Amino acid sequence: MIEKLISGIEKTGAPIVVGLDPMLSYVPEYIRQKAYAQFGETLQGAGEAIWQYNKGIVDAVCDLVPAVKPQIAMYEQFGIEGLTVFHRTVQYCKEKGLLVIGDIKRGDIGSTSAAYAAGHLGRVQVGAKQYRGFDEDFATVNPYLGSDGVNPFIQVCKEEDRGLFILVKTSNPSSGEFQDRVTDGRPLYELVGEQVAKWGESCMGTGAYSDIGAVVGATYPEMGRTLRRIMPRAYILVPGYGAQGGKGADLVHFFNEDGLGAIINSSRGIIAAYQQEKYASYGETGYADAARAAVLDMKEDIASALSARK
Amino acid sequence: MIEKLISGIEKTGAPIVVGLDPMLSYVPEYIRQKAYAQFGETLQGAGEAIWQYNKGIVDAVCDLVPAVKPQIAMYEQFGIEGLTVFHRTVQYCKEKGLLVIGDIKRGDIGSTSAAYAAGHLGRVQVGAKQYRGFDEDFATVNPYLGSDGVNPFIQVCKEEDRGLFILVKTSNPSSGEFQDRVTDGRPLYELVGEQVAKWGESCMGTGAYSDIGAVVGATYPEMGRTLRRIMPRAYILVPGYGAQGGKGADLVHFFNEDGLGAIINSSRGIIAAYQQEKYASYGETGYADAARAAVLDMKEDIASALSARK
Repeated sequence: MIEKLISGIEKTGAPIVVGLDPMLSYVPEYIRQKAYAQFGETLQGAGEAIWQYNKGIVDAVCDLVPAVKPQIAMYEQFGIEGLTVFHRTVQYCKEKGLLVIGDIKRGDIGSTSAAYAAGHLGRVQVGAKQYRGFDEDFATVNPYLGSDGVNPFIQVCKEEDRGLFILVKTSNPSSGEFQDRVTDGRPLYELVGEQVAKWGESCMGTGAYSDIGAVVGATYPEMGRTLRRIMPRAYILVPGYGAQGGKGADLVHFFNEDGLGAIINSSRGIIAAYQQEKYASYGETGYADAARAAVLDMKEDIASALSARK
Repeated sequence: MIEKLISGIEKTGAPIVVGLDPMLSYVPEYIRQKAYAQFGETLQGAGEAIWQYNKGIVDAVCDLVPAVKPQIAMYEQFGIEGLTVFHRTVQYCKEKGLLVIGDIKRGDIGSTSAAYAAGHLGRVQVGAKQYRGFDEDFATVNPYLGSDGVNPFIQVCKEEDRGLFILVKTSNPSSGEFQDRVTDGRPLYELVGEQVAKWGESCMGTGAYSDIGAVVGATYPEMGRTLRRIMPRAYILVPGYGAQGGKGADLVHFFNEDGLGAIINSSRGIIAAYQQEKYASYGETGYADAARAAVLDMKEDIASALSARK
């Protein structure tokens, strides 16, 4: 699966994933009003508003980027109606040729992790038949429970040619509370990174990278540099660009010498670009074009930073 | 919310939570066949089978225990149809007077954690209206992302009188890979435990315990003893009893002197009791009575262990 992502990055020239993390406050008023007129101010109405909003963005950016990353929490908050829109969004993005990274941060043990893996990356057996529940291409996974929690996901990745991004060092200010704790002179995130490298060995595709990648926040570039070295064959999914404070120049440490090895996520900075002063001229009705412009600017920012490194 | 749980434990005399973690292989053949006859071997058919199975168990045990703990992964694997049954199960258990601990192990940051908290414990705003997505009483939370991830859940617990159980030391064999890493002479799980105690201070109810509890596996009784001391006011949710190897005698360390402070989960050991030799005489059609018998045996096992401690 990682080869598909790399091929998409090479084709578009954009190591960028668009985070589809919709809040109702990002959805233009005219889209909300239309959805509420049809379904009322209900969970279904909220779902419809988010679906129409997502669709506009996906249509506007699908030729520019290789992948999207819907954050399931933003859908789950609306209960079943929200998760139905999550599922519909995953399907639609795949129809448009995008790879889908389910930002689900699941993690449990044994048969429970296996159930999450089946639901998001694999198939579930019902009598003599098999079904796919949500059917993402990649999923994010929380490693706190250790190998018992991660191995069932890896097993499904092997069977189904899917991939993972395992949380190593997250982008938030308090991520150090536990992740930076030092054991034998080394922080926990390095130990997790080593384990990610080890887990990844069994999932090497035909190229230089493993189907088992890592999440490392853009907000910690120096740690990114170290983790890049510890996990040379892991693709790094980098959140925290833009709205969370990460800049293009911070990102170079996450890439390998081959110009590959990292994919940068931006969510609000793209999908709600029209709410920023910089893109305000697009207006509400131009929200999708504003998202497209923000992707192009981000692509340029990353390319400049990478070429300045050379 | 913790007072409601304690009151339920005192009323039933059972510090027991029944884990509603259905696998299709636990569901008696006659229930599966009936569901498939009605809806086919489909996700909807699987959902119906699990719903009927759950309902039988809940009806059989609802007067014996204060709470149930549905494991959302077991529903999520069936996609939207499965999650619809999760929601229906939560609602039904509440109608039957049971408290519901959503075993969701979610954890993210900022507005994303807030979205999970709204969906599972709180309300989401749609226009001028508010809705509850899944509406559990408690949720389990993964602490790997630190306070940024946990605080939004705590905020909702305060506003809505709900509670949390935060993963500290999980019951699985590999839980030590990261949780046991030693910093300044102390393992990570102790540091997480201290943080749970600190988070809990702001959520004290009227009694001795906080709405912010912890998860500590029955399979690590010595660590349970230490964590009991570190988090004196945290209720400990203890998985790993029965099928995972924990015994009544191991559990005493998780309780305080007042006989409170812990609630023990059993899932497969109760809901699939009829598949054990000990309860085989109940047969498939007696699966719910077998579950009831297993709860009564577990209650006796814990009571004996606690009275032997005195």
